[in-house]
Amino acid sequence: MLISIDRSSDAPIYRQIVERFQEAIAGGRLPPGAQLPTVRQLADGLGVTRLTVQSAYAELQSGGWVEATVGRGTFVSEQVQVRPHWSSAEQDVTPAVVIGDILQMGQAQSMRSMASASPDAALFPAGEFWSCLNEQQQHTMILTGYAPAQGDAGLRIELAAFLAERGIAASAEQIIVTSGVTQGLTLAAQALAQPGDAVLVEQPTYVGFLHVLRAQGLKPIPVPIDRDGPLPDAIERLATLHRARFLYTIPSFQNPTGYVIAPERRTRLLELASTLGFYVIEDDIYSLMAYDGPPPLPLKAGDDSDRVIYLNSFSKSLMPGLRLGMMVAPPALHERLISLRIAADLGSPLLLQRTLAAFLRRGEHRRHVRKVVPIYRERRNAALHALDAHMPPDVTWTRPAGGFCCWLTLPRRSGIGEIHRLALAQGWAFAPGSVFLAENDGEHHLRICFGNLPVDGIRRGLEILGQVVRDYLAMRPPLHEPVANWTPLV
Amino acid sequence: MLISIDRSSDAPIYRQIVERFQEAIAGGRLPPGAQLPTVRQLADGLGVTRLTVQSAYAELQSGGWVEATVGRGTFVSEQVQVRPHWSSAEQDVTPAVVIGDILQMGQAQSMRSMASASPDAALFPAGEFWSCLNEQQQHTMILTGYAPAQGDAGLRIELAAFLAERGIAASAEQIIVTSGVTQGLTLAAQALAQPGDAVLVEQPTYVGFLHVLRAQGLKPIPVPIDRDGPLPDAIERLATLHRARFLYTIPSFQNPTGYVIAPERRTRLLELASTLGFYVIEDDIYSLMAYDGPPPLPLKAGDDSDRVIYLNSFSKSLMPGLRLGMMVAPPALHERLISLRIAADLGSPLLLQRTLAAFLRRGEHRRHVRKVVPIYRERRNAALHALDAHMPPDVTWTRPAGGFCCWLTLPRRSGIGEIHRLALAQGWAFAPGSVFLAENDGEHHLRICFGNLPVDGIRRGLEILGQVVRDYLAMRPPLHEPVANWTPLV
Repeated sequence: MLISIDRSSDAPIYRQIVERFQEAIAGGRLPPGAQLPTVRQLADGLGVTRLTVQSAYAELQSGGWVEATVGRGTFVSEQVQVRPHWSSAEQDVTPAVVIGDILQMGQAQSMRSMASASPDAALFPAGEFWSCLNEQQQHTMILTGYAPAQGDAGLRIELAAFLAERGIAASAEQIIVTSGVTQGLTLAAQALAQPGDAVLVEQPTYVGFLHVLRAQGLKPIPVPIDRDGPLPDAIERLATLHRARFLYTIPSFQNPTGYVIAPERRTRLLELASTLGFYVIEDDIYSLMAYDGPPPLPLKAGDDSDRVIYLNSFSKSLMPGLRLGMMVAPPALHERLISLRIAADLGSPLLLQRTLAAFLRRGEHRRHVRKVVPIYRERRNAALHALDAHMPPDVTWTRPAGGFCCWLTLPRRSGIGEIHRLALAQGWAFAPGSVFLAENDGEHHLRICFGNLPVDGIRRGLEILGQVVRDYLAMRPPLHEPVANWTPLV
Repeated sequence: MLISIDRSSDAPIYRQIVERFQEAIAGGRLPPGAQLPTVRQLADGLGVTRLTVQSAYAELQSGGWVEATVGRGTFVSEQVQVRPHWSSAEQDVTPAVVIGDILQMGQAQSMRSMASASPDAALFPAGEFWSCLNEQQQHTMILTGYAPAQGDAGLRIELAAFLAERGIAASAEQIIVTSGVTQGLTLAAQALAQPGDAVLVEQPTYVGFLHVLRAQGLKPIPVPIDRDGPLPDAIERLATLHRARFLYTIPSFQNPTGYVIAPERRTRLLELASTLGFYVIEDDIYSLMAYDGPPPLPLKAGDDSDRVIYLNSFSKSLMPGLRLGMMVAPPALHERLISLRIAADLGSPLLLQRTLAAFLRRGEHRRHVRKVVPIYRERRNAALHALDAHMPPDVTWTRPAGGFCCWLTLPRRSGIGEIHRLALAQGWAFAPGSVFLAENDGEHHLRICFGNLPVDGIRRGLEILGQVVRDYLAMRPPLHEPVANWTPLV
């Protein structure tokens, strides 16, 4: 028998069946496409009623774990756990919903998705990673105890070397290890602002940061951007008007546009921060994924006035599941941030910190980046070619020189709802554009991610998207565009 | 040569020397007690000035990495990185400082400390843990990608079974995986209260939670406790007076007292929560460490009115370094808490979640608890015997039936400072009592932890503490005790 139930348990039988199958599917014992026993077979085998088994199968089906075809049987879904909430018209498309769905998809091996700005799991250096992990085995006792909240000293020493290559002169003592950039964003926002405070964000910006702001009760003020980054005059005006506490930016290969802030704008931004007294939270997560030249240096490399909180992680350039990132803050904020990290979760698992330290020390990270950049470059090229080939006129998109994302803008229509729902109906997931906007200006944007699909998949997905966009635009006549669209280009 | 420097690096030479030695020490290549080269030897070997090496050694020494003895040389400290900040009279003893120091000590193998309420690393089931970890190796690609923020479904299924044994009927869907109890505390407090709100805490209570409250700008209202837990009449009065949003409690083997809330008080507490409309955050982290009977059931097992947010983790009953815990909240709060978890850090590393799931599935956790409870019972006994033998009259302490802590109260003195400083001068670390008090009532408490030292060490530590206490009490005449000490017993 594939599963067994425990009659002495308080848990209802149907629930036990559901959970045993979820376990088998999640653990890989039942792979995508595997057939489940028929209702009759399982009911007889377990000695329970058919109704019980039917209830269990119905729940598995509604959760997206299995799919039933009348006359053929019940099969493990090709896209396990991936029925995005945002596919339902009843569900509000909020940042939390979209991020939650994207994270769920992380586990689906056969997902047809260009929704997640994540690297391709097939490229992860699994052997090298495991070799570094095994190196830690002799220290299990120590590595499974409590660790310093600021992060392991050995890892911070490697991170100091990593940052030196990015032009940042930070000693190990000045670095705080974080659980990914996300935790760094949360800690930095906590340290810099109180609920109700205004903060500047690029429009569009990273959906996860808008979610952090919402969770903390902070008010995002959108700053218009063009292909050279956020407009300095707008920053000056809005920072003053709203007494903004900080500005959040991804200066290199921004999510979702792929834009890089131009050198003269970087200088001006740091000057404004210094003059007007706001901080800059810099998210440098995509910079190593540079396809048309060397990685741009971060703002922090020229932060002579100590206005920049620098964040980075290995979620894009290596693997997201380590949940390890770094933060370098102005000295005045350093102790406060460590104190907030203690309150957040006491620190990151030491075992993974030491594994990453070994990975860096051996030069594996550098090697991995060298290996994957040409692959992602080819995917970026394929995506842009496919968009050129399949998108109707009047649709525009960004042409990123790095990172994993480009940003698509359709002519405005009204009353149809967002384009991503139509794409989902065709079996392809894209991230809805509205969640990247601090101030929603319509439902005519889409984020396209090309990092985690092979070239063939990218071509197929964007060909289908092209058809979906044509259908969408044909549904309604064009809206009258506003004369002054205050958000340039994007 | 033991270390090498990079002359092409921007980092100053002395800093490179510091970091290479820190790396060697943290990585175990230079064990405690190992001698460093003399200043002259290293300067000659590296071709740098003696002043450079002297600067590096001075920094290593001030950070507690090495110790220098005139005429003998420089040696790796026996207690690497453990120069507690609280040893300095200039340093305020705040929760953050004390927790930070305790976490640092987690890595010191030769620490003479009864300051940390942690399990003994020497008892960690290293082999079984690594076997479960290795089981995951075939899935590295998947396990190093993004994962659901709520936690891995496979782990949550195991946690549901774990909770069923604790009398809690929660399905996998109702469980949220957290990065330890600490993250659960932070998320729960965020979900339930706004800055400025009042919340009830036991007096004394877990220092880490007082730190969480401080970080969030919440106001802790101390509730007096006796050996049967917090006083219901005080809860009723204070909850009403301050419009408390929630009460935080460790009902079983409380940190720092070891007390267990009596059954009738539990019923009354849940009634009050329901009647007055406050929530209860229940921290169940010590309950399996039960030495004189079966583990008490949690409040959540009788939470018919959905007032309890239940938190637990494997930091005490297994190993803290996993940074994995669980949360079961009333249905009305469930989605909000997942959303806050997304904002906090997107989720826990999947690799460690699956390793823990395998550990639970194989029955290793249950086996481990059976193995260690008799050992910790013996240590608890040794601690109480040693206190009986060595403490002068008028000193009182709690007699815990479980957990890792007992709480020592001295007759009041004034103007001496806290007793823990005197103990540190004798080479023994204890946690200062003041940081466990939401409302400080003096400097005459101390938390004693007996979990992570063998019986011999416990006897020696408490014998020394006995002498320190006698010296302390002899320094000044007794203070006139207040007639009504509103904090009963503790």
